[in-house]
Amino acid sequence: MARWEPGARERIVVAAVDLFTEQGYDDTTVAQIAERAGITKSTFFRHFPDKRELLAAGQETLSRLLAEGIADAPAGASPLEAVAAGLTRASDEMGPTNRELGPRISAAVAASTELQERAVLKNVGLAAAMTEALLARGTTDPVAHLAAELGVLAFKRGFAEWSEGDRDGTDHLAPYTLAALADLRAASSSLG
Amino acid sequence: MARWEPGARERIVVAAVDLFTEQGYDDTTVAQIAERAGITKSTFFRHFPDKRELLAAGQETLSRLLAEGIADAPAGASPLEAVAAGLTRASDEMGPTNRELGPRISAAVAASTELQERAVLKNVGLAAAMTEALLARGTTDPVAHLAAELGVLAFKRGFAEWSEGDRDGTDHLAPYTLAALADLRAASSSLG
Repeated sequence: MARWEPGARERIVVAAVDLFTEQGYDDTTVAQIAERAGITKSTFFRHFPDKRELLAAGQETLSRLLAEGIADAPAGASPLEAVAAGLTRASDEMGPTNRELGPRISAAVAASTELQERAVLKNVGLAAAMTEALLARGTTDPVAHLAAELGVLAFKRGFAEWSEGDRDGTDHLAPYTLAALADLRAASSSLG
Repeated sequence: MARWEPGARERIVVAAVDLFTEQGYDDTTVAQIAERAGITKSTFFRHFPDKRELLAAGQETLSRLLAEGIADAPAGASPLEAVAAGLTRASDEMGPTNRELGPRISAAVAASTELQERAVLKNVGLAAAMTEALLARGTTDPVAHLAAELGVLAFKRGFAEWSEGDRDGTDHLAPYTLAALADLRAASSSLG
């Protein structure tokens, strides 16, 4: 989740995910992560408040990218077209490291209640950022809220398919998140 | 949130919400809650694992009611009609105590990060219960997921309006949650 912050920050995330995979989240200490990443504990704490926040590393950046994409969508764009612009902006920042780490992060999260809670809060933060960006361009509530929820679901589903599927497809995440958004849009007309 | 579990359980919740309002969530201890409710600490712990779980008291019951209402909806009901049946079932269990405590619980939650996190996780639990009930009646994914999200939003919005508004309207919650669902349904056709 840290492609946009290379160097120490990315090394910390990779080392942590390796250790979570090998020995579990609960049994992994900050000292072990720092050692594996080749940094000191105080360098770790300059980047992250604790190990729980580590996997949320990219959240603020991701929220910012989604919101910027929505804000920059053409004035006449519908709510879901604006969400699609946000997904494209954020997806284009995701590279090979994100793709490779994705399934291992999912495995670590699935094995830890604490990380599951963090992941849930992260999704809520993304939805809030998108809702705010939509309201700022004049989308009314509850349409903005709903469009943002669809955006989070589309990002999650698209990212999972991209990172967990085989590597034959495109290297780019955007086609996956946009296809997921189109599926959800179609689903919204089957609600009855 | 505890109308269906009268007696000690409801007294504990009322006492806790009073204390949270008076002195804040962080500064309130289990011992103080027990004293105010006229019970022992060990009685408290027979009902709740800790003070954080206290406001989630009704979650399991609420999830069960929503899911039962969905399961019992007529076979030909659309996904949103089934969600409406779930909302009706759950709303009909909410009485004056829930209505009176609602705004004070909201105030306590707004003042505490810990309680906000718990509230977010609670909403996710409700959505999961509704999604599962919809999938069980043959609604496909992602329609089930989307309908469940609308159901949670409708319950939250309807409950807030019912408990925070004046007391001139109906005593029943169901008209509020169903109106909120209708609004969200209308919004889903404006997504573009």
